[in-house]
Amino acid sequence: MSAAREDRATRRPGRRTTNGEPYTLGSLIEVAALAFLERGYDATSMEDLSRAAGITKSSFYHHVSGKEALLRGALDRALDGLFGVLAEPAALEGPPVARLRHIVRRQVEVLATELPYVTLLLRLRGNTETERWALGRRREFDQAVAALVREATEAGAARPEVDPVVAARLLSGTVNSLIEWYRPDRVAVADLVDAVERQVFDGLLGG
Amino acid sequence: MSAAREDRATRRPGRRTTNGEPYTLGSLIEVAALAFLERGYDATSMEDLSRAAGITKSSFYHHVSGKEALLRGALDRALDGLFGVLAEPAALEGPPVARLRHIVRRQVEVLATELPYVTLLLRLRGNTETERWALGRRREFDQAVAALVREATEAGAARPEVDPVVAARLLSGTVNSLIEWYRPDRVAVADLVDAVERQVFDGLLGG
Repeated sequence: MSAAREDRATRRPGRRTTNGEPYTLGSLIEVAALAFLERGYDATSMEDLSRAAGITKSSFYHHVSGKEALLRGALDRALDGLFGVLAEPAALEGPPVARLRHIVRRQVEVLATELPYVTLLLRLRGNTETERWALGRRREFDQAVAALVREATEAGAARPEVDPVVAARLLSGTVNSLIEWYRPDRVAVADLVDAVERQVFDGLLGG
Repeated sequence: MSAAREDRATRRPGRRTTNGEPYTLGSLIEVAALAFLERGYDATSMEDLSRAAGITKSSFYHHVSGKEALLRGALDRALDGLFGVLAEPAALEGPPVARLRHIVRRQVEVLATELPYVTLLLRLRGNTETERWALGRRREFDQAVAALVREATEAGAARPEVDPVVAARLLSGTVNSLIEWYRPDRVAVADLVDAVERQVFDGLLGG
């Protein structure tokens, strides 16, 4: 995790371990993300998190201001990954279908490699300010993809008889449903990426 | 709702309103399903449900033995719908791809018309015996569909380069993701059925 991202997550620039402790903010965010997924954000205390990380509570607070900052850090990992994809040259240049293919492939890759963070993002209900902020960002991402589906349809490259809004919803539904079953030890990321691309663009029967 | 299904839900054959009250077990199950979705099963009391239905608690207990029976009744509606599809002639006879097409179309139809019940089913976490039973039934349904995807692949009708297990997961992920956004007043059920069939079988670009 970059220093810039640490700063954003903690809102305390320059805060870093100096005592040689093996914990970084990144590893504590990972511990927190897994705990939030397992028992829910509200039901998880800083006490629980310190126990899960195997460090004292005061040591934990040395790294991060509290639970909300950890959630924010975890959601940043997911959102930075997804928005990073939209900023890649192959997502910005070329015919809409080619850009869409690139985005879908890379979106699956981000989901598979940042699984707990993306899962947390997709399960948010919007109960806190941080959650509502993240849901807004997630909507922005979906809208960017939906705009490309519409462009592809208008360019005559995608099937015209389906409403692009519905097509975009189905596309993001297919990709996001991966969090329900995908585990990296069962299917290699590269195979997953190929499978999703084929099914989304050419269908179960196409090819 | 049929008398047979009422009996299964309440486990009290013959229990019916006799005082001309406008509430049936079916309508109380609907009230309960919406409340469970809104605030969660654990957080919903029979008190809450009576208030939502606009009847007294004792009047509510005249219809149903308690919360668990209401959950069971709601899940029965979803599962009866889904397993009903598997028992239809078009799901049992003909080449695997045609059977699969029929099942996917009808599965979407059941999901759209029994939306709160299917949503409840898909959000279960398996905390109670009833929930675990329903999750088991849901797995059975998914396995029946996955077996057909495999058959279609082996018959050379579906793309061979994707693992049928992954293909089946993506298929059910696409269909189940409808609960996250589908509302009957936005897209007609028939249009949704067509859109999902096209996207699943022929892809965004196929046709």
